[in-house]
Parts: sequence; structure tokens; C-alpha cells
Amino acid sequence: MQNRQIILKSRPAGRPTQDNFEIRPIEVPVPGDGELLLKSLYISVDPYMRGRMSDAKSYVEPFQVGEPMSGGAVAEVTESRHPDFSAGDVVVSRPLAWQEYQTVPATSVQKVDKNPVPLSYYLGILGMTGLTAYFGFLDIGQPKKGETVVVSGAAGAVGTAVGQIAKIYGCSVVGIAGSDEKLRYLKDELHFDEVINYHTEKDMEQAIARACPDGVDIYFDNVGGAISDAVLANINKFARIAVCGQIALYNATEVPAGPRIQPLILKKSALMQGFIIGNYANRLPEGLARLTDWVKKGKLKHRETVIKGFEKLPEAFIGLFDGVNTGKLIVETK
Amino acid sequence: MQNRQIILKSRPAGRPTQDNFEIRPIEVPVPGDGELLLKSLYISVDPYMRGRMSDAKSYVEPFQVGEPMSGGAVAEVTESRHPDFSAGDVVVSRPLAWQEYQTVPATSVQKVDKNPVPLSYYLGILGMTGLTAYFGFLDIGQPKKGETVVVSGAAGAVGTAVGQIAKIYGCSVVGIAGSDEKLRYLKDELHFDEVINYHTEKDMEQAIARACPDGVDIYFDNVGGAISDAVLANINKFARIAVCGQIALYNATEVPAGPRIQPLILKKSALMQGFIIGNYANRLPEGLARLTDWVKKGKLKHRETVIKGFEKLPEAFIGLFDGVNTGKLIVETK
Repeated sequence: MQNRQIILKSRPAGRPTQDNFEIRPIEVPVPGDGELLLKSLYISVDPYMRGRMSDAKSYVEPFQVGEPMSGGAVAEVTESRHPDFSAGDVVVSRPLAWQEYQTVPATSVQKVDKNPVPLSYYLGILGMTGLTAYFGFLDIGQPKKGETVVVSGAAGAVGTAVGQIAKIYGCSVVGIAGSDEKLRYLKDELHFDEVINYHTEKDMEQAIARACPDGVDIYFDNVGGAISDAVLANINKFARIAVCGQIALYNATEVPAGPRIQPLILKKSALMQGFIIGNYANRLPEGLARLTDWVKKGKLKHRETVIKGFEKLPEAFIGLFDGVNTGKLIVETK
Repeated sequence: MQNRQIILKSRPAGRPTQDNFEIRPIEVPVPGDGELLLKSLYISVDPYMRGRMSDAKSYVEPFQVGEPMSGGAVAEVTESRHPDFSAGDVVVSRPLAWQEYQTVPATSVQKVDKNPVPLSYYLGILGMTGLTAYFGFLDIGQPKKGETVVVSGAAGAVGTAVGQIAKIYGCSVVGIAGSDEKLRYLKDELHFDEVINYHTEKDMEQAIARACPDGVDIYFDNVGGAISDAVLANINKFARIAVCGQIALYNATEVPAGPRIQPLILKKSALMQGFIIGNYANRLPEGLARLTDWVKKGKLKHRETVIKGFEKLPEAFIGLFDGVNTGKLIVETK
């Protein structure tokens, strides 16, 4: 059996490149008592990982140079030294190292049902991204029927889930994305009410005003920067703004400047709140149950971009910043 | 009987000046059926009025050029055409025109108790400013015992109330103000734990870090701008930021720029919310009852700067932007 890992070779300055990563052969480890040997099946690549590649203090610990990258993964048990698990079981465990094989304590993983959804869904709509959409939108957004919701990064993994949950709650949903293909997907398959292409639209503030004739009640912000400035210029009194991601700013090397928003927050009696899924750790079962129900009933569609080959992880991750993906971006190891 | 009013003569560009106001003689009006003739006793001048002097859309309607300014006031009934009121009653009513005498429908005023507090308190700690502090701090701040609270504009009417309420709730309170005399007042008389002079302090971010060794849990923001940047750099995870005023920016003629705060809001899972007292209209009796109780028990001290002379209203208002006041700024008409 061969084994490989991908390490952080150097910290990126700005946009990550292949040079920041190194793939190298390692031994297949031997599980000790109470441990499992796992084979990674599907590995998640996510924008938040960019933060962990820097040395700066953030909401998560930085990756260490010379150590493997890590993140969400679905894995198969290939050898068990714990009575509750057998070879062939499929588990989720966060974070797993970017390795083909690794050992973990059995207490750190959870068995998942192999039916009725594809296993990769546990990294998407039934994983961190679906739960992020669920809690951020419902807990911070507090949607009411008939309200107008704007989602940036709308074609991404979290964005597609937010938009569909907003529709389930009877909201009017406007999605912002960067290609006409993505817009068609949002409108034709996910039934967003309006869509805006930020690459071709000249005046985003006007475009949002046109798409939201009653103003913006909830803004689910995945991107930050100029797109968010344009949305904020259209918020209603008592608007709620869930700050989930700021991908437009992740590669910034200095503190980015922009219009001060506190006067607007004051004028509109608006609420802005940042969050990470970890804040809702004690409510995950509630979220997972409702998401699973919606997926089974066909109310919540999930699209993935699956890139095959363990060695493609760095390329897939870098591609996130070019918007290569529609929906959740996943690497299948085989 | 003579009567005078003060009108908005022209809209200010930037900082208001005497030229934006005009004082002029008018007739004493005659009350109709159901109306009262009121004599203004105490008139409130507040930073939010600067917003109403501009034509821009805001959370309150703009003042009209050629029409009188208006705002909070305590007045005495000099003639009553309504059975529930008699000459000599004292009432509060918002907004009253900046006039010595005016008529109002009796239904628009509320009689107040002449004891046991000075009448001017109904424009301060038992009026809009006290209620603003009460609801903004408690509802948005959600204080817990032992947390660290920072208040900017700490020596102002709202700031002094916020700091004292925070002490009642067992918080550690750090006040930011602009003169050593104000700082002494906050520390010696209101028992703030730490105070910072933003005029003499070279590095505000460091000063706040020193004053808040456990970080900032709640920031009650009366000022905005660079002072708020320095506070935000020190917030803890799950910090709450109540945006109450942005006096540093009110005279700005363009949208002010500054560091983008969404990445910080995200990293800290922080909550920022703007508010005006009108949002709590249905809870005012609760707030007034608790504030009155604290004032009577001596737990909540109130300081006023009272300027005498109706004609001094413009000068007093302009002085707000130079920080002439400690505590609530009021003009006594006689």
C-alpha cells in the first residue's frame, strides 16, 4: 500500500500558488489500540482554509509550515482497532490531514449512513457548508415570508443552500454570481427570483436596486468588498446582514479600506453579525435533521464539482479563488 | 407677552454655524378647543439634530429651511382648553418647536411629576438620552457580570448613563472622553474603572489594550471614526457593538472611508447593531420605571450643562461638536 500527504511548504503572500504546497510519499501508519486506519475518499476544499495558511491570528489555528494541510473529509475504515467500527464503515471526521491513509482515535469520527444520499454530500449540503447556510441564514437572518434576501457568492456551496432555504421560507431571493452559466443554474434549476452577474454588470448598486424593488431585508455575505458595498447601499430599515465569508478580501496583504458602514448601520437600525459553524456546535443535530429531510424531499438540491485525483488538491483549492466551481468543490482521491 | 422662534435659515455644509440659524419674533398663538398653550422651560440640544439639518434621507425627517428647529422640551401649561390639564402643569412632548410659546393638542403631551427630580431630568436621564442608554446597552449589549464594556463619548449624556448602568450590571467599564476634567468626573464621581483621553493619548489601540487586559466584550459607540477603529481592534470573540451615534462623522461632506470591518466581524463572530430609541417605543414604560428607581436610589447620577437664555440655542447646539458639555446639554429658556 502506498501513502502520500500534501504539506504546506510555504505561506502564501496574496493568492496561493502550487509552490506553497508539496506532495510527498509517507509510510502507511499502523493503528494502535482504539484507533482506526482511514482511507480518504472525498476531501473538501474551502475558502476558509486560506486564512489558516497565514500566520495571523484568526478564528482557527494556522496550518504549520512543513505539516500537512487538513480539512473536512469522508473516509473509509480500512482497519479497526475499536469494537464499534469495522473495515468498510464510512465515517466523517473534521479535520483529517490531506493524506491518502491516516490513523485517528475512533472517538474522533462519526459513522454515516451510506444511503440514501451520495457520500460526498456529507462534505456539502449535509456537512459544514449546508449547516453553515442553515444556521447563518435562519439564526442571524430571521427570515419572514415575503422578505427580500440577497446572497453573494450565490453559486457557491453555501450560497446555493442559502438561496434554496430562503425560498422554502417564502422569501424573494436575489443571487449574485460571476458567470452567465452560474446565473442560469441559479434561476432555472434553483428558482432564484433574480440573478446578477457582477463581472458584466456596470453599476452593481443600480442592478441590486432594480432586482430588489422593495429593498434588501437580509443580506447573506459570502464575499465582502465592493459587491457588499453595493448591497448595503440598498438595505431596508431593520436589515440583517450575516457575514459568512469575505473571499474578495482573503488574499489582501493589507487591511482593506472601504466606506465606513457604521453610519449606515445606525441610520437603518441594521444588524450585522459574523459567525462560524462552530458557534452552533450544540445545535448541529437539529440542522442536520432538517437539511436531510429537505434533501430527501427534493426541496434542497445540491451540486458538486468533483475533481478526481488526490494530487489535484492544491490545484482545486487555488481554483476556488477563480470561481472554477459551481456548488461545493470536492476532490475524490481515487 | 412676547414670543420668539429659531428657524433653520440654511443647511450647513459640514460644521453648523450661527449663520444657519435665525431668531425672530412671532405672535403668541391662541389655543383652540382641546389645545394647550405651552411655555418652553427647558430645551434639549442633541447631536442627532445635525442629521435633520441636512436634506439627505435619514432615520428622521429633515428640518425644513425657513421652519423652526424642534426637539425635546419640558414645558409649562400657561393656558388649557382641555379638561385634563390646568395652567401650571408641567409636560413633556417631543418634538416641540424651538419657540418660547406654542400651542399643541393636549393629546400630544404627557404630564410629569414635579418631584422628586429636577424637571430638566426629563430631557436627560429620564428622557430620550437615559432611555437610549438603557435599551441600547441592555438589548444589544446583553451584558454579563464581569464583562468589559467600552463607552466612547463617555462623558456625554448617553455615555455617562451607559457606564453607570454597566456598573450596576457588574461590568468593568472603560470610558473614552476628550479632557482630563471629564475623565476625573467619570472616574471619581461615576466610578468608571478606567478612562482614556483621546486628545492626549498617542496610540489609542494600545491604550485600549492596556485598559482592557481581558479584551472588549461590549462597545457602546457614540462617536465612530478613528476612536472606534481602535476599540474594534481589541474586541473579543462574540463581542457586541451597539452603534448609537457617529458624531465624529456627522459633519462629513463625503462618505468617510476607513478599514473594512466585515473581516473582523467575521473573525470574532461579533454582532454590530444600530438603533434609535424609537425602535423601543413599546417598551418605554419599562425603561422609565427602572431608570427612575435607580435615580431615586442614587445608583444613577445625572449631570447637566445648563445654558441660560432661549437665544443661546444655536450656540449651545454648535458647542456639542466641540465637546463643551459634560453630561446632558440643556438650554433653560429664562
